Amino acid sequence: MRRVRLAVIGLGRLGRVHAENLAWRVAGVELVRVVDARAEVARELGARRGVDWADDAAAVLDDAAVEGVVIAAPTPTHVALVSAAAAAGKDVFCEKPLAFDLAAARDAVAAAAAAGVRLQVGFHRRFAPDWAAAVDRIRTGELGDIRLLRTTLRDMRPPPRDYLASAGSLFVDVTVHDFDTVRWMAGEITEVTATGAALDPEIAALGQIDTAVVVVRFANGALGVIDNSRAAGYGYECATEVVGSRATVRIDQHRRRHLQWLTPGRASVDWVRDFTERYPEAYRAELAPPCLAEGQGNIDFFAGA
Amino acid sequence: MRRVRLAVIGLGRLGRVHAENLAWRVAGVELVRVVDARAEVARELGARRGVDWADDAAAVLDDAAVEGVVIAAPTPTHVALVSAAAAAGKDVFCEKPLAFDLAAARDAVAAAAAAGVRLQVGFHRRFAPDWAAAVDRIRTGELGDIRLLRTTLRDMRPPPRDYLASAGSLFVDVTVHDFDTVRWMAGEITEVTATGAALDPEIAALGQIDTAVVVVRFANGALGVIDNSRAAGYGYECATEVVGSRATVRIDQHRRRHLQWLTPGRASVDWVRDFTERYPEAYRAELAPPCLAEGQGNIDFFAGA
Amino acid sequence: MRRVRLAVIGLGRLGRVHAENLAWRVAGVELVRVVDARAEVARELGARRGVDWADDAAAVLDDAAVEGVVIAAPTPTHVALVSAAAAAGKDVFCEKPLAFDLAAARDAVAAAAAAGVRLQVGFHRRFAPDWAAAVDRIRTGELGDIRLLRTTLRDMRPPPRDYLASAGSLFVDVTVHDFDTVRWMAGEITEVTATGAALDPEIAALGQIDTAVVVVRFANGALGVIDNSRAAGYGYECATEVVGSRATVRIDQHRRRHLQWLTPGRASVDWVRDFTERYPEAYRAELAPPCLAEGQGNIDFFAGA
Amino acid sequence: MRRVRLAVIGLGRLGRVHAENLAWRVAGVELVRVVDARAEVARELGARRGVDWADDAAAVLDDAAVEGVVIAAPTPTHVALVSAAAAAGKDVFCEKPLAFDLAAARDAVAAAAAAGVRLQVGFHRRFAPDWAAAVDRIRTGELGDIRLLRTTLRDMRPPPRDYLASAGSLFVDVTVHDFDTVRWMAGEITEVTATGAALDPEIAALGQIDTAVVVVRFANGALGVIDNSRAAGYGYECATEVVGSRATVRIDQHRRRHLQWLTPGRASVDWVRDFTERYPEAYRAELAPPCLAEGQGNIDFFAGA
Repeated sequence: MRRVRLAVIGLGRLGRVHAENLAWRVAGVELVRVVDARAEVARELGARRGVDWADDAAAVLDDAAVEGVVIAAPTPTHVALVSAAAAAGKDVFCEKPLAFDLAAARDAVAAAAAAGVRLQVGFHRRFAPDWAAAVDRIRTGELGDIRLLRTTLRDMRPPPRDYLASAGSLFVDVTVHDFDTVRWMAGEITEVTATGAALDPEIAALGQIDTAVVVVRFANGALGVIDNSRAAGYGYECATEVVGSRATVRIDQHRRRHLQWLTPGRASVDWVRDFTERYPEAYRAELAPPCLAEGQGNIDFFAGA
Repeated sequence: MRRVRLAVIGLGRLGRVHAENLAWRVAGVELVRVVDARAEVARELGARRGVDWADDAAAVLDDAAVEGVVIAAPTPTHVALVSAAAAAGKDVFCEKPLAFDLAAARDAVAAAAAAGVRLQVGFHRRFAPDWAAAVDRIRTGELGDIRLLRTTLRDMRPPPRDYLASAGSLFVDVTVHDFDTVRWMAGEITEVTATGAALDPEIAALGQIDTAVVVVRFANGALGVIDNSRAAGYGYECATEVVGSRATVRIDQHRRRHLQWLTPGRASVDWVRDFTERYPEAYRAELAPPCLAEGQGNIDFFAGA
Repeated sequence: MRRVRLAVIGLGRLGRVHAENLAWRVAGVELVRVVDARAEVARELGARRGVDWADDAAAVLDDAAVEGVVIAAPTPTHVALVSAAAAAGKDVFCEKPLAFDLAAARDAVAAAAAAGVRLQVGFHRRFAPDWAAAVDRIRTGELGDIRLLRTTLRDMRPPPRDYLASAGSLFVDVTVHDFDTVRWMAGEITEVTATGAALDPEIAALGQIDTAVVVVRFANGALGVIDNSRAAGYGYECATEVVGSRATVRIDQHRRRHLQWLTPGRASVDWVRDFTERYPEAYRAELAPPCLAEGQGNIDFFAGA
Repeated sequence: MRRVRLAVIGLGRLGRVHAENLAWRVAGVELVRVVDARAEVARELGARRGVDWADDAAAVLDDAAVEGVVIAAPTPTHVALVSAAAAAGKDVFCEKPLAFDLAAARDAVAAAAAAGVRLQVGFHRRFAPDWAAAVDRIRTGELGDIRLLRTTLRDMRPPPRDYLASAGSLFVDVTVHDFDTVRWMAGEITEVTATGAALDPEIAALGQIDTAVVVVRFANGALGVIDNSRAAGYGYECATEVVGSRATVRIDQHRRRHLQWLTPGRASVDWVRDFTERYPEAYRAELAPPCLAEGQGNIDFFAGA
């Protein structure tokens, strides 16, 4: 069985998840190189998985054996890396957000198009079995007309200060997932009203917001509401509800283990703490051929932009 | 045990619930009269419960033995009935909304104050054990600072056309419950952004909206979001979530019976269909002394207006 | 509306529940007398609810105005009280178990039959809406043939030592509820295998068991399993499952309030602590006409004995 | 990274799961051969995953490059295959049950011991994260003394007739999983009472039982109850509860997707249909080094026999 040869650029929390998945949990792919600006991080992972490593992306771009790259480096590097990888003829999987603004994002898309390579943005929820199953059933008409969509995306606690400094606003860094999800599920957005608040003292000190409610109106007239928090406290949560004229679907999954603990007068369950606990299947599936290789997935993200 | 003598004016769906509760499910009260403009409705209920009946509220207001009235007649009659009952020296429980606009509501409150009678508006959620328990724990500080509040109020299907014609807009008729709830739970509102849509063809034909999302900002800086629907289809739902800096509380209860049915490949539960199924305890509790008799409950509703 | 005049004999935990229900939560009945061997207990309740009280059951049996009695006194008194009440021409509601052995139970049934009065045993689960709804649907054939029935009845902590001393064994005091339930749901039992253990030190010291598993075979060939505990620790639980050839039904309800509390890494709900929290509706319904007055309910309990 | 070279013998439903897992979902292993008596089945899978195939186990046993074998062939072949593989110096993973009777099982264990190879039986629940987490917490003493253990294992519908003909009785084929689980969780069994029934017409026609309740007493005095069904109808279910003196733990997970579908008056979830849907993680983990390679897992299964 031929395997697509891939490299991972950027070995932060999510980059390491991608590298491990490519190393042994995804069929049809072969991890051949890992890159991180911190040489010791790249070296350790390369040694553990028996692949070449480097502290500079050039090593990957110059390697003719690499067919595609997974970019999980900080957001400010995305557009340049996508463009360089495209110019080198590599297919590209890039973590979200592709860029901080629409013009730069379009530049990246144009670079991929000009080079004739595939470009996929890491909207993993598209590959999460729960959402995928919901969308399949929505597409069959089982819900009737969509009337109201509600989705929640909350982190347990804020990311590190240096991440916040380079990740862009809550809307660019977090809500971007929800914008993709709601357009995927309910169609194009025609109206947006956004409200934000800075309630966590650390985030307020950075001049950012940590809590947001975004109301949208869809082209079919339905309403949608997105709520986000960087500091939900109790854990990570991503849950979606779509109310239709004939049925309603809710997606949830928050338990770490399917255990229930009963102590005097109380029953409790453990809650997921971050996205890696919530989405193990999605992070594998989004990198599996034919996704990247075949251009499936969310390559049409900017089509409507 | 002395029992407070009460009369019910208006025997629609909720008026009949109130009358039955007063007849034999609430301690410390005695149902003595029932009134409905439809004489046969009043006669049937009066006969069944062994109390006097009439088709005109004057019969109640002129009866010195009646100490208080429960007004469940259509909204357009509320202000006049409250004022007349107050003038007759009766304590008053009036269904929501008290009036269609703020000025008229203040007139009703002023009439009660001038007469020295008690006035309670039928915000039953204040007496629903689930919400009351949540508020008790919020008041102890268990949640820390409130950061986000989310509440849903949806009906299974729209009310009859003639009800819609006289009930006022979705915001006045339905969201009014949520405005009371969120102020009770999270404090005063300083900013409101409301979005509505007419998605149900029948309601659209009446020039009304059936779906709404209302975003509020509270005085402490937290955000809140209310969603309402007159036609959720799957059933009735009222659910609230308050996200705090130290804990989060969710209130839900949608099952009609605590049964689960498992058929090939599926497990299902029955869902409540309307508010009478959801709130049997609250509708009893809101009429029990010392609530009406002692002026407890939501008499301070307009304090902040 | 004519109301059936009833007296309560025995004002322990459950006797007080019955008395309060008769006083103001059940339509069609009137509480007229309360009796307890502890005069101060009877006096306090009688005063609070405005009814006559006594410390001897004779006061009730001699009162021609009393139409029926609710016997909630200790088990050793049941047979004599039932017989005396029957002889006095009173309809009888008697708490479970009717007696400690079959012969005595049959004497009590015979006494009621000879006097022409009604006799109902307090198997409240027959009146619990969840079980009643399940049985209704089982009767329609929705489950197909019953294949396996599983039911749990557990107390949070053991009852007081003096209760244990007079209540009979775990099988007589607790499992009796389950024997009634499983026969009601799945038909006659043809084979019983019982296993018990004494694991709680206090109960073991009394020479009793606190944990039991009882396997039964039904006349239709299906199997059933009952598990009981006097010291489940986490709370009270009563849950039943019936597996059928076409569907399966599960009954559960353990939450005190429909609240969920989320704290870091955990979501928890409060659990019911005893049967009074679990069955408020059943305890009202079992005393409501036409149940007692019409001989409905479980009057046929001993038919198959 | 060195990878342990493994072969799979027997490509039925579970054998194919094992082969796919070894091919690309488990780190540290390499699938090198597949065998099935049906040549076309072996050929198809071998071709798809690029490994050698054969219709005779001898091809594997003679291949010096194969370090270990996964035996998923029919139960009657287990003892001979284990012995032959051990004699050939291969480590062995064998599906349950190891044999139909204790003497034969001990022969297989002795063969492995004599050859100095590792032998692991496919009790996947030992590697299921939910059970493993429960056991970890039980081992810390969080539950206190175990008092009652209840476990359910049910199939949606009976296996094919030819499987039933060679798989042994319900107790040997199915309950064997539960015997392993309850001993793992609660310690040695000192007393067993088993009850069975033939309720499914097809299984009854084969002279087998399809429903069983097994009550056990543990060495510490606690009780346990196992219920099994080959024809639960609604789906597959494996759930365990352990009641302790200080806490109680429940394990459940039955949903196929974390979706809830709401239709008028009803909310439903999809239910898992078989063990492959329920245990994807366990089937990967039980084959991952160091399990097989290091002799971890349940190699001590027969220690107490």
